Amino acid sequence: MVEPATASLAAAPAMPQLKDELDIVIPTIRNLDFLEMWRPFFQPYHLIIVQDGDPSKTIKVPPGFDYELFNRNDINKILGPKASCISFKDSACRCFGYMVSKKKYIFTIDDDCFVAKDPSGKAVNALEQHIKNMLSPSTPFFFNTLYDPFREGADFVRGYPFSLREGVPTAVSHGLWLNIPDYDAPTQLVKPLERNTRFVDAVLTIPKGTLFPMCGMNLAFDRDLIGPAMYFGLMGDGQPIGRYDDMWAGWCIKVICDHLGLGVKTGLPYIYHSKASNPFVNLRKEYKGIFWQEEIIPFFQQVLLPKDCTTVQKCYIELAKQVKEKLSKVDPYFDKLADAMVTWIKAWDELNPPRGGSSMPNGKAA
Amino acid sequence: MVEPATASLAAAPAMPQLKDELDIVIPTIRNLDFLEMWRPFFQPYHLIIVQDGDPSKTIKVPPGFDYELFNRNDINKILGPKASCISFKDSACRCFGYMVSKKKYIFTIDDDCFVAKDPSGKAVNALEQHIKNMLSPSTPFFFNTLYDPFREGADFVRGYPFSLREGVPTAVSHGLWLNIPDYDAPTQLVKPLERNTRFVDAVLTIPKGTLFPMCGMNLAFDRDLIGPAMYFGLMGDGQPIGRYDDMWAGWCIKVICDHLGLGVKTGLPYIYHSKASNPFVNLRKEYKGIFWQEEIIPFFQQVLLPKDCTTVQKCYIELAKQVKEKLSKVDPYFDKLADAMVTWIKAWDELNPPRGGSSMPNGKAA
Repeated sequence: MVEPATASLAAAPAMPQLKDELDIVIPTIRNLDFLEMWRPFFQPYHLIIVQDGDPSKTIKVPPGFDYELFNRNDINKILGPKASCISFKDSACRCFGYMVSKKKYIFTIDDDCFVAKDPSGKAVNALEQHIKNMLSPSTPFFFNTLYDPFREGADFVRGYPFSLREGVPTAVSHGLWLNIPDYDAPTQLVKPLERNTRFVDAVLTIPKGTLFPMCGMNLAFDRDLIGPAMYFGLMGDGQPIGRYDDMWAGWCIKVICDHLGLGVKTGLPYIYHSKASNPFVNLRKEYKGIFWQEEIIPFFQQVLLPKDCTTVQKCYIELAKQVKEKLSKVDPYFDKLADAMVTWIKAWDELNPPRGGSSMPNGKAA
Repeated sequence: MVEPATASLAAAPAMPQLKDELDIVIPTIRNLDFLEMWRPFFQPYHLIIVQDGDPSKTIKVPPGFDYELFNRNDINKILGPKASCISFKDSACRCFGYMVSKKKYIFTIDDDCFVAKDPSGKAVNALEQHIKNMLSPSTPFFFNTLYDPFREGADFVRGYPFSLREGVPTAVSHGLWLNIPDYDAPTQLVKPLERNTRFVDAVLTIPKGTLFPMCGMNLAFDRDLIGPAMYFGLMGDGQPIGRYDDMWAGWCIKVICDHLGLGVKTGLPYIYHSKASNPFVNLRKEYKGIFWQEEIIPFFQQVLLPKDCTTVQKCYIELAKQVKEKLSKVDPYFDKLADAMVTWIKAWDELNPPRGGSSMPNGKAA
């Protein structure tokens, strides 16, 4: 059975790469004792804590961390009527943190995730691996059988076209989980005791044209490249669905990354996921999604973005339009979601005005 | 540094799964001493040895193996004028073995490949893993972040559409190599000392629409499902190119598998690749391919097979037609290759007549 790392982490190097360019976003409803375990890795960074649920509750953060905390009152105050696009009583609220960050990179993690150990027993510095993944190119146009060719000890294999070896910028790094796997409610019910004990020492680019189930538990991305598409949708309180926030974002970012020539990696790093959520509660949140995803996936597999969609914002507005046209017939919820997608972009642009000069693809200022 | 397994293999289980349904195909020019190491794993199976080069040379096979050996004289005798489609002085000749086999499954391995060890030091039964890969479905339509969902301890993750969980039949299992990686000549020259020491404990389906560099060193496939497309082309003696035999086959089988709804897996099992081939010799064989692949890859990425191509043979003949039309302008070699592809199918069908009754997709008799 896998266990989280328990050895003294004090000896672990802090590795404050990109210290001034990365924020850690944590959605929570409880005291953040889990940060103690991450202290050597997270303390150099700024934390953005998005408090979900009752805003009058006090969330304790262990001393020594540099953080801002936003509760629902803060969200309402900052966004005004546009706060309607931020979910309540669902970890989807985390995307508010992406919006208020001023940094280039985001790492987001759930508060029931601890430091994993690699097979040699060494604590895994998840953040460091995400940074490595994001700072090296992706290779979405052709599969490399030795996985990420940019890792030490690996390269492109025989038969890999040389013109494709430069790769493309990496926009998203999707990390995995040891111990409790990210299963849906039916699978949780059928396999209550299954634990993920397999440490797969690989990072790979998800090929262009292929969708994947993006989990928000252990996720990093480049805000400049893909931030405006990292919207976690309308979930939780007042909505007919939950637990599809990260999935929705994953489908949206993948088709936009494919369109803009950006890369999405998955694999390392692992975190140790400590606690299975209640499968009965999950089933209630998920059950509409289980039907809907059968129509949502073909929609995203076939979606085409016009050539003039040259920025993430333009892509996302176009996607919202197509969601309204094609998915509203599945359920009126998608009509509301499409509107929220547009509201999200408006709010994003208000909080993140262009940095002057002519606008470049992906919202970067020239 | 990784080393091949040296512990006594006598204790290893023989695992003669599919004993009567699988042939092992080995192309060679030398005595097959390497079989001693594989004895516990290979001895239950029938070997098809394709002797390359001088047919008057005697190839010694260790005692106790059940085998047939075909040299060039045998190939010429069996195929007559159609023997022109079988390469000489190149390991591409191995595909003759696929054609004369009467079994459902083929495993092919190079004679400089030894038994690898897993991280615990245990000898890897490569054949057993290939069989597991082929007997479980593939999932080409959506990426599963925990890799092969059919492995023990794994499953489909949250957000994976339920309608896609049945998967599709697996036609090809592509295994990897520890120690000497399968690099092209330029990479060999630049990184002469690089060794692959990373044991990635994963099997995954290569998504639909994605091409990959298929290496013939450690490869298994289902003859009934994809055999007629597993042609290794014209290489070696009298040809302007070498070392693209398996690549060519890989591009062909992938577009045909995608068209017919079949799966291709890569990852486990590892073999231990003992000897780097000479990079200078390789460069001479490869250098035209290095240019040509820049046009071949876009060709295969765009190729469309019509709906009436319902068998592997029909797909392959259509592909040959398109190669002639679109790649002959790259080099007259492709005109000759397209003709050889048609000859190969004719020879295949002569040696593998329909088993009576109405023909089913993939050459299976009803």
